[in-house]
Amino acid sequence: MIQIYDTTLRDGTQRKGISLSCEDKIRIAQKLDEFGVDFIEGGWPGSNPKDVAFFKKAREMDWQHAKIAAFGSTRRAGTTPEEDANLVALVESGAPVCTIFGKTWTLHVTNVMRTTLEENLRMIEESVAFLKGQGRRVIYDAEHFFDGYKADADYALQTLAAAVRGGAETLVLCDTNGGCLPQEIVEAVQAVHTALPGQQIGMHAHDDGGMAVANSIAAVKEGCMHVQGTINGYGERCGNANLCSVIPNLEIKLGLSCLPENHLAHLSEVSRFVSEIANLRPNEHQPFVGKAAFAHKGGIHVSAMRRETTSYQHITPELVGNEMRILVSELSGHSNLLSKAEDYGLDDVEKKDISAVLKEIKDLEARGFSFEAAEASVALLLTRQQPDYQPPFELLDFFVNVEHRQGRGTFAEATVKVKANGELLHTAAEGNGPVSALDKALRKALANHFPVIKKFHLADYKVRILDSNHGTNATTRVLIDTQNGTKHWSTVGASTNIIEASWRALADSFEYGLMVVK
Amino acid sequence: MIQIYDTTLRDGTQRKGISLSCEDKIRIAQKLDEFGVDFIEGGWPGSNPKDVAFFKKAREMDWQHAKIAAFGSTRRAGTTPEEDANLVALVESGAPVCTIFGKTWTLHVTNVMRTTLEENLRMIEESVAFLKGQGRRVIYDAEHFFDGYKADADYALQTLAAAVRGGAETLVLCDTNGGCLPQEIVEAVQAVHTALPGQQIGMHAHDDGGMAVANSIAAVKEGCMHVQGTINGYGERCGNANLCSVIPNLEIKLGLSCLPENHLAHLSEVSRFVSEIANLRPNEHQPFVGKAAFAHKGGIHVSAMRRETTSYQHITPELVGNEMRILVSELSGHSNLLSKAEDYGLDDVEKKDISAVLKEIKDLEARGFSFEAAEASVALLLTRQQPDYQPPFELLDFFVNVEHRQGRGTFAEATVKVKANGELLHTAAEGNGPVSALDKALRKALANHFPVIKKFHLADYKVRILDSNHGTNATTRVLIDTQNGTKHWSTVGASTNIIEASWRALADSFEYGLMVVK
Repeated sequence: MIQIYDTTLRDGTQRKGISLSCEDKIRIAQKLDEFGVDFIEGGWPGSNPKDVAFFKKAREMDWQHAKIAAFGSTRRAGTTPEEDANLVALVESGAPVCTIFGKTWTLHVTNVMRTTLEENLRMIEESVAFLKGQGRRVIYDAEHFFDGYKADADYALQTLAAAVRGGAETLVLCDTNGGCLPQEIVEAVQAVHTALPGQQIGMHAHDDGGMAVANSIAAVKEGCMHVQGTINGYGERCGNANLCSVIPNLEIKLGLSCLPENHLAHLSEVSRFVSEIANLRPNEHQPFVGKAAFAHKGGIHVSAMRRETTSYQHITPELVGNEMRILVSELSGHSNLLSKAEDYGLDDVEKKDISAVLKEIKDLEARGFSFEAAEASVALLLTRQQPDYQPPFELLDFFVNVEHRQGRGTFAEATVKVKANGELLHTAAEGNGPVSALDKALRKALANHFPVIKKFHLADYKVRILDSNHGTNATTRVLIDTQNGTKHWSTVGASTNIIEASWRALADSFEYGLMVVK
Repeated sequence: MIQIYDTTLRDGTQRKGISLSCEDKIRIAQKLDEFGVDFIEGGWPGSNPKDVAFFKKAREMDWQHAKIAAFGSTRRAGTTPEEDANLVALVESGAPVCTIFGKTWTLHVTNVMRTTLEENLRMIEESVAFLKGQGRRVIYDAEHFFDGYKADADYALQTLAAAVRGGAETLVLCDTNGGCLPQEIVEAVQAVHTALPGQQIGMHAHDDGGMAVANSIAAVKEGCMHVQGTINGYGERCGNANLCSVIPNLEIKLGLSCLPENHLAHLSEVSRFVSEIANLRPNEHQPFVGKAAFAHKGGIHVSAMRRETTSYQHITPELVGNEMRILVSELSGHSNLLSKAEDYGLDDVEKKDISAVLKEIKDLEARGFSFEAAEASVALLLTRQQPDYQPPFELLDFFVNVEHRQGRGTFAEATVKVKANGELLHTAAEGNGPVSALDKALRKALANHFPVIKKFHLADYKVRILDSNHGTNATTRVLIDTQNGTKHWSTVGASTNIIEASWRALADSFEYGLMVVK
């Protein structure tokens, strides 16, 4: 059993553009726990008050599979562990596992930390021993291990021996700069095994040379029993070892077990969940879990796939919770839509309704809509086929203007005319821009009839220009995510006119919200 | 010297979302030729009329370094090479190099091609010999080599021997499904060397297991002298081996030469150029060439970097034409802007002007602008500091409205008021959407004074919602690319109001165009 140590919440958040709230971190940690990783590194309590809050919350929760780990460094030079704020914060975090990093590379001991090689060894041993004495499991991360090993192999091994004397349960070799090739990993891991026989070794790789996954696999093949990485490979610079590639390579290709049985099939779901919470566009081409990872364009591949499914797939996509796609129409057909109708509780949808909706989806997708991320719009298309369905309101007219006058700035105003419960509602509102004005006017018009609308909150608004080389005549697709605290749903609109596209997505958002939120 | 064989224009275009015109392909090929790759695979003339046009154009051009290669397959079963339309198209392409793929895996010979193992060997030998007889250099791509080798090693090696008998100069081992681990590559390459001593071997890897770069490097370490891949790793499913990682790993890490001397420093430029032409968002975290590949977030890394630049960088970024970034302000300062001023021919820009522009850029970036892809807007900021600069026109007011009336559809109209050469110009136009109406009205207003504007063509219009979790109140950034046939330039605007943001980018586009197009 290979230990999987997830550091998405600590090293992963070093990626440019990621900023997770404490609540976001808890949600991701719960998902990782369900998924079955062994360790979840929640943050660095000594460096970040947000991380202190995470550990406080994590202490009060039940974790099924994972152990929560707190990250920190060895004590500073010339002090004692008891006086070191960073080590004290680790203890106070209450995390059952503490992971601390220390220096391996002589150059960094003398030039960056500006201390002696002997003091660095004491810092490692005493810091590990201090945490051990507080009843914690201690994992030691040897920073710059491979660079340090190349510069002075003997000293690099001495730092590991110091961690062993302190009581570390695992010695993690870090390729901090991410530039090693697999052969260098192999040689260094062999040397560590020889110098410290019987010690559990781990690997922490970065992807600066595009080798983080290969290096992690190479380390495991040399006997490492612990792999650190992040979901989707998030991390500083080029990222950390991507657990979404490491885990299936270990389980499927090498037959080594990392997760509880059958949990690998949740891999794609975990990947998408984390990118969703981190508000990063998923990488469609990501190995194993990307939406296009098993997508086949027309022609020779598709016809070969019909004859022999091993033709252009290295594994069965269902093993990692992914699926094969044939890139002709985006939705694969009746059975797909039928299962969606069941998801929405529309049990009495008939076959001819499905065919009608399928045709409508294809027509709309040809015009620029995309329903893959807009399940609420799909649910509405299905619902509208029900003979007894009465939409809560009917859109009639809108008028939006944006006015820029010298010295007075820019203003946006919208008027809308809608019909609800037989009443004609006609109102106007201003906004920061044309879409915000439209949103406000529509809410104002509907608020008396449907007070629940006040609780709908527009959580995200995304614009994609589709055929962008048509300049300002391009088709614009708008995706809107709406929340009401407990539920969230996504709707889509598309048009050459961005205001029209937004209007359709907004109207779907309100209509769906009124259907599901009572 | 390792041969670099680029297949961006053929295998790369199999990526979902890439569609290159013939002109796009020629521009990329020219860039690759300057960069110094050995082979540029331009397409599959037998499968695609657009590719036929590419080879026609390529024949008439001078190539400095690269040989143009055309791709195709072995002849069909039960026919002769002379009768095979695909092989005839290869000859007619006029390409000096022909690369053909054939089947290695017995399962595919019998179940997909539905022919005999003997006929497949004849197909390989005769197809290679036919092209050779037409005076072409022939590269043989052994499809599914590694899967075929695992299934029936002896037959897999026989297919290569058939290609050698036909006269192939290189035998390329393809990991078509992209699922191999490096150790499998090593073993198979060793077996090929033993069976066919002295033959030149190549590697063609796909990234389905996240191992394409590691597999390519492993193959070279075993003596492969030819590597196939694509710029940015573009390709079907998870993509091909990324030449932007393979080349620097070979040159910097293994000390093997692939490119003409000092050409590696153009790597980042080539990567960005190709993503630009392909209209794909560059991957900021891509090893070696990504914008964030050498970016350091605040705190411990940055302070360590100040003491020791090797702290968190595996190579000197300048080796691959990239640069270190400290993620605080995006533009690195005076020297950067000064060199841009020189690029724009603004030789007499003074130090205080640079400081003023730097401050303005920082203020605007804090409000959502981004000048990295909008060099024309930077040039205007610099130009406007010149005491004698007179802008060609002055924007006064605009008014845009979008109207949706039941049964009559949606209309967009804009009015603009601008001043040029002392004259007040006030006009109106309709469009497909609000921005297209604004564009048309502005052109109409300025056309009499500046007839050259008629030749400006809006080539691309991109919208990015920045802090998208503020819903419709988010800041919107608009990038506009404009062309006039010979030049193209990019401008930026940002605002919470998408119309205002577009208006600023449009106005910059016209002002810059009038400055540089006479």
